[in-house]
Amino acid sequence: MSGRPNRIDFPVSQIRRYLEPGPIVLVSSRCQGRTNIMTMAWHTVMEFAPSLVGCVIASGNHSFQMIRDSRECVINLPTTSLTDQVIGIGNTSGAKIDKFAHFGLTAEDAEQVAAPLISECHASFECRLYDDSVVERYNFFIWEVVRAHVAASPRHPETLHYTGDGVFMISGKIISRRSQFQPEML
Amino acid sequence: MSGRPNRIDFPVSQIRRYLEPGPIVLVSSRCQGRTNIMTMAWHTVMEFAPSLVGCVIASGNHSFQMIRDSRECVINLPTTSLTDQVIGIGNTSGAKIDKFAHFGLTAEDAEQVAAPLISECHASFECRLYDDSVVERYNFFIWEVVRAHVAASPRHPETLHYTGDGVFMISGKIISRRSQFQPEML
Repeated sequence: MSGRPNRIDFPVSQIRRYLEPGPIVLVSSRCQGRTNIMTMAWHTVMEFAPSLVGCVIASGNHSFQMIRDSRECVINLPTTSLTDQVIGIGNTSGAKIDKFAHFGLTAEDAEQVAAPLISECHASFECRLYDDSVVERYNFFIWEVVRAHVAASPRHPETLHYTGDGVFMISGKIISRRSQFQPEML
Repeated sequence: MSGRPNRIDFPVSQIRRYLEPGPIVLVSSRCQGRTNIMTMAWHTVMEFAPSLVGCVIASGNHSFQMIRDSRECVINLPTTSLTDQVIGIGNTSGAKIDKFAHFGLTAEDAEQVAAPLISECHASFECRLYDDSVVERYNFFIWEVVRAHVAASPRHPETLHYTGDGVFMISGKIISRRSQFQPEML
């Protein structure tokens, strides 16, 4: 069982810090009173302001229609303390089980969207659909992050990164190379 | 100085293994006889077959027009042995220097595209522009990987992941959780 970190508001223009390294995320949604969660790793930051994130949500997922219809979701960042839940969520369908209840996770009210935050995650990013013009062709959703909640510590959480085939890379050490950067590149 | 790993053909449908964990990559290009390299981390896998990768190449980069005009590039995966070069490439402009020469990297002929492979990288993925319909709005290019070259070892290279602000996360330990997966999810 994982705890619920104490999370505070975080600037939406700076969420690249958490998503750009490429972690697995949990996408939570709510549609017609039902909630769901899916595991997802095909995402990329696309812009700082507005804060845009693009991601692929395959149409075979139960979440796909819920997210497409509600035009909202929350992108949550789990740490390795949630590894079993991350795998379980990715290997079950919301058509059959209530994932919040089944995996012992807390659905917390968001501020700007109806989709729930997952309280046990290190960070939760509330998203509104910004552009669905390539959803039909690639299942690629472009989101605007409208609110961000991030645990104050640890500063660099241990995240999961997927390589396929049931194999994960866990985030390792942090190095600063600030002194090698041009000021305008920071 | 880094060596040049012995690289062999790799199935393009399986490159998620290298890109899905979210590493920084080096994008090499060639246009009108000139080559260039840029550092990039805003990318995502989009499909297995065809093997599609989407990425943001900001229009302020010297590479942008070269890549847009040539409609080709190579996405190269550097390891931590190239950390200084990765930072240097990201903090200089191809308008002013020849990055291959300046950073002591080898431009190797690709098989399917005119853009050069970077021999010192762990992997190089030859890409052809698959869809430019969202380039105008988001600088987002959708590529088809048409050929992949990957070093036979190590099996899990040490990669760089960017958090912004001159700070990098280095890939850490590998864990297999295959036994917790449904067969169809592998």
